[in-house]
This record gives sequence, structure tokens and C-alpha cells, in this order.
Amino acid sequence: MVYEPRHMKWWGWGNEDTEFHVQNHPGFWPYAKTVLGIESDDFENRHWKLDTIQLPEPCIHERFLGKLRSSFAPTQIYNSPKERIVHAYGKGFRDLFRLRHGVAAGAPDLVVYPESERDVCLTLRAAVDCDVVIIPFGGGSNISGCLERMEAGRMCVSLDMRRMRRLLAVDQRSCTAQIEAGIFGPDLEQQLRANGVTLGHFPDSFLHSTLGGWIATRSAGMQSDKYGKIEDMVMAVRLVTPEGVLETRTVPKSSNGIDVKHLCIGSEGTLGVITQATMQIHPQPESRVVKGYLIPEFEGGVDAIYECVRQECAPSMVRLNDPAKTALSMAFRPPASFFSKIAADVFKSYLRVKGVALPRACLLLSAFEGRATEVARRVRKVESIYRRSNAVSLGAAAGKSFESTKYDFPYIRDFLLDRNVTTDVSETSTVWSNILPLYDGTMSELRSRIQESGVQPWAGCHISHTYQSGASVYFTFGFKQHPGRELDQYLHVKQAAQQSFIDHGATLSHHHAVGTEHLPWLTADISPLGIKAVATIKRGLDPANVMNPGRLQPSLDPLEDWHRLGR
Amino acid sequence: MVYEPRHMKWWGWGNEDTEFHVQNHPGFWPYAKTVLGIESDDFENRHWKLDTIQLPEPCIHERFLGKLRSSFAPTQIYNSPKERIVHAYGKGFRDLFRLRHGVAAGAPDLVVYPESERDVCLTLRAAVDCDVVIIPFGGGSNISGCLERMEAGRMCVSLDMRRMRRLLAVDQRSCTAQIEAGIFGPDLEQQLRANGVTLGHFPDSFLHSTLGGWIATRSAGMQSDKYGKIEDMVMAVRLVTPEGVLETRTVPKSSNGIDVKHLCIGSEGTLGVITQATMQIHPQPESRVVKGYLIPEFEGGVDAIYECVRQECAPSMVRLNDPAKTALSMAFRPPASFFSKIAADVFKSYLRVKGVALPRACLLLSAFEGRATEVARRVRKVESIYRRSNAVSLGAAAGKSFESTKYDFPYIRDFLLDRNVTTDVSETSTVWSNILPLYDGTMSELRSRIQESGVQPWAGCHISHTYQSGASVYFTFGFKQHPGRELDQYLHVKQAAQQSFIDHGATLSHHHAVGTEHLPWLTADISPLGIKAVATIKRGLDPANVMNPGRLQPSLDPLEDWHRLGR
Repeated sequence: MVYEPRHMKWWGWGNEDTEFHVQNHPGFWPYAKTVLGIESDDFENRHWKLDTIQLPEPCIHERFLGKLRSSFAPTQIYNSPKERIVHAYGKGFRDLFRLRHGVAAGAPDLVVYPESERDVCLTLRAAVDCDVVIIPFGGGSNISGCLERMEAGRMCVSLDMRRMRRLLAVDQRSCTAQIEAGIFGPDLEQQLRANGVTLGHFPDSFLHSTLGGWIATRSAGMQSDKYGKIEDMVMAVRLVTPEGVLETRTVPKSSNGIDVKHLCIGSEGTLGVITQATMQIHPQPESRVVKGYLIPEFEGGVDAIYECVRQECAPSMVRLNDPAKTALSMAFRPPASFFSKIAADVFKSYLRVKGVALPRACLLLSAFEGRATEVARRVRKVESIYRRSNAVSLGAAAGKSFESTKYDFPYIRDFLLDRNVTTDVSETSTVWSNILPLYDGTMSELRSRIQESGVQPWAGCHISHTYQSGASVYFTFGFKQHPGRELDQYLHVKQAAQQSFIDHGATLSHHHAVGTEHLPWLTADISPLGIKAVATIKRGLDPANVMNPGRLQPSLDPLEDWHRLGR
Repeated sequence: MVYEPRHMKWWGWGNEDTEFHVQNHPGFWPYAKTVLGIESDDFENRHWKLDTIQLPEPCIHERFLGKLRSSFAPTQIYNSPKERIVHAYGKGFRDLFRLRHGVAAGAPDLVVYPESERDVCLTLRAAVDCDVVIIPFGGGSNISGCLERMEAGRMCVSLDMRRMRRLLAVDQRSCTAQIEAGIFGPDLEQQLRANGVTLGHFPDSFLHSTLGGWIATRSAGMQSDKYGKIEDMVMAVRLVTPEGVLETRTVPKSSNGIDVKHLCIGSEGTLGVITQATMQIHPQPESRVVKGYLIPEFEGGVDAIYECVRQECAPSMVRLNDPAKTALSMAFRPPASFFSKIAADVFKSYLRVKGVALPRACLLLSAFEGRATEVARRVRKVESIYRRSNAVSLGAAAGKSFESTKYDFPYIRDFLLDRNVTTDVSETSTVWSNILPLYDGTMSELRSRIQESGVQPWAGCHISHTYQSGASVYFTFGFKQHPGRELDQYLHVKQAAQQSFIDHGATLSHHHAVGTEHLPWLTADISPLGIKAVATIKRGLDPANVMNPGRLQPSLDPLEDWHRLGR
């Protein structure tokens, strides 16, 4: 029996056998009710039942299935409703909304679990031979719609990579590790830790996502400020395509023409299957410190984290919440966490003395890791910069509170969905000089779009992932659903955020991929010739168009498609 | 009259109006004579005459020329022998050898100087319309054969970009600059300095190369340890292709599918013309320190620079010479430079006390730049690491000596070519654990290959451009020419170096591009499917195959082509 990580629950975030206890965040629901204008606690207590889902009749290509059956063990091939439903979508708002309403049009006809690169090659060969669609599947945590089938007519197979999870080699001296692509975050870090090293990649989805998924979507971990985005960590890659295996060499840098490694990174399953990669790793940090601060104004916070970049002392993680997101974080904190009721009252008086007005205050979380002496030095330097923006330290308690809940945020959406509230995120990156105009413009667009649907708007933002030239700007929004018009209402708001990014010269996403949700803005982002270039690579490596078809290729009216999708 | 940088002399390195004085390096020729086994000083004192060169009859497509004449000023279009010869080749060994022997088969039929992106678009449209080949030309400093025409039959135009040299915009806060691609290093840095910033890109060719050339070849500057390779600095790019303009957005990072920026970087003129880029820039460093050290053994030197990387305190530049390259550096130093005769004797006694045997000693140059306090701190930390490898400081004098001659090394080749000595370089990069095996293997291959041609071998190496996972390994070699068989002899040796890189799992080049000289090893480097991917992009963006045809596309027998090339 091959060990493999459990699937997430099909109706929400987290493993089926993992309970998320909202009572551990007692302030959250009262806060949400206030800001969203919810008056009642009276919601249908739904038990999500698999058998209420309308699964499309499976389209089975018998010769294809025969080929697979002749090479694979029975435990590698599944067509049960549950397997099909679990692989139907990622975890975007539309994904969950549809499944909860019994719609699973995106479900594959078959699920295959390869256990070796040979299995992947075999599957792709059979797929080309029989004109069967293949959608590579990692952890299924993507929230931009990278996973549902985009076309009917051809048989569609979800290729679940989680059994290809070996750490193949670690070169301690060079700090590189050769790793199979289906490995999940915790499994990978556990094996690396046994070797005294770390990849340093901790996206919010860490518990439920895979190396291959990270690479295929250009993921970013919370500590990208120190370790880089995933594209900065990939030293070499193996991509099995319908035309053969693309393989690059494990070298620090090269001048070997067009860097074909970058064709694999971000390919979102459209060219082939990433089976393994050699990654830059790092010694386990000697010391790790996470601290929280309150800064009186958002603008001052942006200046503070900017100054750290300029002075070459940026923390390994920085998260600057705007006032709305700060209030949300405060509401989300565990009971009796970073300050108890009494301490909080004392602290509030202290803030008054310091001139910090809570409604405008911003929570700034910063993590530091590395050698102990360097961490201590950097904390001192960063704090001296923060102080110039009148930051008030919340001490390590706020850091601990963040650490203990950092992977829990996605559960909020499920909790709110249960209560007929739509929430989603849109994130981008831009240069420092454009951060405040982009922030102001997008927040105002989000708020007015939500108001247009007649409900109370909630929108917040955090800045994270700092670079020499700019940072990521990450918006979260929520509102009461308009019964019967939930999808229209959602699209109306989501479109505003994405269009604002493009109008402000930013990009469609900093680390959530294109998928279906961002496809209408891809042409503006990479120019029509960029689209043509991607299409041409696709035709070259996947001439039969069996790999995740429809993605990265906007149609003539992508916005129309986007609205139509998954109703 | 448009200002433009002068062309280099066609028979060697440096501007025609710049004299290189070998008498400023009085120790050099005696050293070379000894190590190369040259007994006589009696060489033909040649005066290179343009009119001895056999220029192929120009192939002129009259309709194409007519189109250009109707849009361009007469000062933008040249067909004089001199212009054709200056644009025939780069500065590789074979390039210079051929021109000096009257061969200019690689010369274009026409030279065009665009002054705007409109001019570039116009030229490309006409080229496609008339089936005329376009070879983009920057500074002409490439030494891997990126510039000569690879085919006869079609008219061939060298598109010299040097008039597109404007700094279009500087965003001080975000540290980005939008720059036209034809600008030369010194011009760019001068304009940036006026804005208080720097690109931080100083390749050996700095004085004679352009931004567009750097990007098209994946160039590395001496201080890449701090500022990155050029591919790390490009934030956005504009590439004019026969199918239109590919344009990306100025954002720090994105998750917008396949990163099409990386199709432009390293494209070596095969997809289109890079007309401008937005680059990551940096504040001018407050402080800059360059110091020299002697380390008793090469292995200890590698360990020392490795340890700096691990301790996250790598200098902004590191250059560790092996014993042979150290001896060459000593011989090349200016008169009475870093230690005078008497001081040298004292120093030698000191080294004896320290246990440093000069024949095995290695020169280690290190530069540090940034904020003054950070530079001072880093120097201290690095020196404490170097001391553990028993390094002896040569002080700032050795650094000054390096700084004053750092752009002069390419002149050595001209001087030696005048004396019937062949010299060339081959460089690669590899992971730390592989540096010594690669070094030993390649040095031994180089020496024995040279010996096979019956002459005394000289080969040396330096390590530079350090990364978390490894470094660049840069070999220099030289030998007396076998009269009448110079090219065969050269190829015999060059092939050994390149093959050794591939056999040792390294890459064909760290920063010198593929061109014609490294093309036979491209398939091994990026895999056959990588070749196919590049070919497919080429067909998509340049279906008429007018952009620098033949490059990045190995034929069925590339080694045979390579041997045949340019005789």
C-alpha cells in the first residue's frame, strides 16, 4: 500500500478528517456580522452530501482504458463518483459554490495515480493515441480555476501526482535537492529537515499543495523575501510532454540561449507533466523570530517596509495589513492570545499616548530567520526603521498568534459560505511608486462594486512579498450573497479587482496563476504576441492538444467565456 | 548628427582610436614566452589593411533597399566595405583569425542604423516582405560567434542598434529604469549616475557592449554576486518580431503563466530585436572596496569563497585565480604596482613564514560595495573566513591594480595573435560539489589536447560569480600556433573544453551565449525536446526565418558544421 496524503474535503478547505474549529476564533463571527451587515444567526445547517451532486455521464474511451489497465495496478485507476468529484475543481469560490449546489460539470471521467515517470509517459502516449485529455493534479488547492475540464466531447483524465513523492537526492554541499513533483509541503519539509535543510517555501496552501503544483503555477511562499518565489528556486526540471521529456541541467546559471526551464515553470499543465525538479535548498535556520507591530497609518507602514528593502535588511517575511485587514486579524486571533482583555485595555491606553488611533492602525507582521547573530542584528535594524514610522511593538505574542493560525485563513471562506456570504481574494504585484495608487483605486472599485449589488461591502488588503522594485498587493473581499444571483454578484466584484490591476499597470496575479479566473486579462498582461508565443510552444510540445486544453489561451471573447463558465 | 560610440577595430579588441600599451604590463611577454615555449622575439610586424580582405560580392535585394531608402535618412544605410567588415563578426578567436587572414565570408550585405522602434519595425516588415535576413548588432563584442551570417543566398542586413541609446525613464522610488537597448555600458552608467543610481552590470566587455546585447546573450557582470546576472535584472522587455511586438509589464514578479519575458532573454537575435527594457537599478553604492589576497591552495580558496556564500556574506565580486592564472595576473600587473621589487622580496619572505609556496598560491580578488557600514562589516566577516584558509592580505593595492586593468585582458589576445599564439576562453557554471572534479578534468583535457598538437600548453582557470548552489568556472588557454593548421589546432582544444563541461554535468556557457561556437553542445545541455521547443517558438514568431537564422538550432551534424565554419 502506497502512502499518500488525504484529499481535501470536496466542499471546502482542509482534509476530510481535519476539523476546523471556528470557536477557536471567538471574535470572528461577531466581527463579520457587523462589517457585513448580517443580523441573524439563523442559517440552514447543511450537511454536504456527495450523492446530491449531478455528475456528468463519464465519457470513457475503452481502448485508452484498456491500455492503462494493461500497464497499471487496479489501485492506480479510479472512476468512482467520489474520486471524480474530488478532482473536479480546485478551491476557488466558484469551484466550491458549484459543488455545494450540486454542479460538477468540471469533473474528469477517470482519475489515474502514476507512481513513476514511466507511468506518466505511458499515460500521455495513450492519451495522444486515443485523443484523451489529461489534467495534471497536485494538491487541488488552486483557487484560480486551473483544474476543471474546459471542454466536453473528449474523455478527460485527472492525473493525480501525489504518489510520486520521493526525495531522490540531496547535495548538502551545493544545497540542492532532486525531488519528485507530487510531494506535499509537509512531507517534503519533514524529509528535508532530516537532512538539516529546508526549501523555504511556505505558501498559505502549504499543507495541501505539491512541488509540481507550485512550479506549474509560479507559487510564492510566505518567506519569499528571503528564499525567492518558486521560479527562483528551480534549478532544473523534468517535464514529460506528449512529444517527449524536456530536461534541463542542474547548474546555478547558464547562457545557453532561451532558458527552456522557464517554459515549464508556469505552464499550468498545458505542455506536459512536471515529474521532478532539482531545487535550491538552504540550511535549516538556526533561529526564527516572528514579531508583530502596530503602525499608525497604512502609508507609514508601506514606507517602513520599503525602507527595509532599500537598506538591504528586509525581513524574511513581511505582512502589512491595512486597517480593515488589521481589524479582521484582531477578530481572528485565538482566545486570550496576544493580549488578554485586561492587557488589551492597558495597551489601548498606551496606544492613545503614542498617538495610534486603532481604526487607522495597521498590523505589521515580520519574520526573521537565519543565523542567530544575523537575525538579532536584522531585528534591531528593522525595528529602528519601523520606529521612525511610529510603530509600536506587539512583541513575540502577536507573532506566535500568527504562526499558530497562519494556515487557517482559507477556512474562513467555508464558514462564511455556510452563512451565505461570498468571500474571495485577488492579488497582484506592482512597483513601489504605484502601490498606493493601486491600493486606493482597487479598494474604491471593490467597495463600490459590492455596494452596487445592494449589500454592505467589506474589503481589505495586505502588502507582502517585498522586492527591490516593489511588492505584492493582496486584496480580500466579502459580502452577503444576493440569493439566486450569487455568481453574477461575485463576477461583478471580481472583475473590478482584476480590471483595476491591469488599468494600474500591474499584473493579473502575483502567485495564484492564470487558470480560468484570470484568463480574460492575460492578453493585456503579456501582449497579444505573448499569447501567440505561448500558443506556438503549446502546438510544438502538445500538437494533439491533450494537455489541460483551453488554459493560457484566451478565446476571442474571454470575458464572455469567463461569465459563462461553470453555471 | 547623431552621437554614437565608435566601432572596435576590425582586427582586434578596443576602439580604433584607443591604443593598448603592452609596455604598461612589462612582465607579461617574458612570462608568456616562458610558459608557451617561445624563443624568438622576431615576428612580422603586420599592419592590418582593410583592402586585403576578400569581401563577398554584396547580395542586394533592390526592392528591399528601395523600401529602406524611402523611409530612412542616407546616414542610416551603409554598404561600404569598412561597414560590412566591422559588422562581419564578433571578437571570437576564429572571427579575428579569419579577418586577419583576409576572410570575411560572414559579412552582411548592408548595415542599417535604426533610430527608433518604428525604424526597427519598418526594417523587419520589409525583410519579411523581401525574404531578407536580419542580424541584430549591439557592440559586436560577442566571442561565441553570434554575429556572422550562417547562410548565403539571401540578402543579409546587420541591424546596428547603437543609435537607440536613450534612457527613457527612471523611477527613483522603485529603482527601475526604462532604457533603449542600443546603449553602451559607459553611456548608460554615466546617465544613471546622474540620477544617483547604477545598473550594477559590469561585464569584461562593458566598454564595448550594449544593454540589448547583454539581454540577448544572458550576460553576467563582474558583480553579479550582488546584482545578479542580466536575466535577474530585466523587469520588462520589448521585442520587435516579424509577427509584431512582444511586450511585458513592469512588475516585480508575476504568476501570469509561462513567463514570456524569458523567451526574449537569451534569444540571440533569433526571434526579433530587443528595442528596450525596463531594468532593476540600485542606488549608487556609498562605498566600494576592492582587495586582493593570496591563498596557499586552490582547494582552500574554493572553500573560502564557498563559506562566504554559506554565511550569507559573499562579496559583490569574487575572482579566485588558480596558480596558473595567478602567475598570469602577476605578470600582467602594471609596473611598480601592488608591490615594488624590494617590497616583493620582503613579502616573499613573509609568505615563506606563512607557509605559502608561490607556485601553488592563488590570487583571490574580492570587491565589496554598498552602504559604508555594511561594507565594513562584510569585509571583516569575509576576511575572518579567508584567514581560516590561511589567506594573506595583499591589501587594497592589489585591488587597485585589478581595477586599473580589469577591462584590458581582451587585448592580450590581439598581442599574442600578432605573435602567432592562439588564446581563447571557455567558461561554464556548476554546483559547488562538482567544482573541483570539473576543474581537474577540464584542465587535464586542455593540457593534453594542446600537447597533442606538439606545443607547450598553458591553461589557467578562475572561479567567479558565486551563487547559493555553485559558481562559474572560467578557463583560459593558450599555445603556439601550428602554421597552416591554426584552426584545426584551435578546434581540437576548444572542443575538449566544451565536451568536458557537458561530460561533467555542467552547462555549455555561463555568460558567453551559444552562438556558433557552442552550438554543438546545445542539445546535450537543454535536451532534444528543449531544442524542439526553441524551434517551435522561432517558427511562431519568425515564420519566414529572417531573424539571425541558424542560431540556437543545431543541424543533424552540428560538430561537422562547427569544424567547417568560417574557413
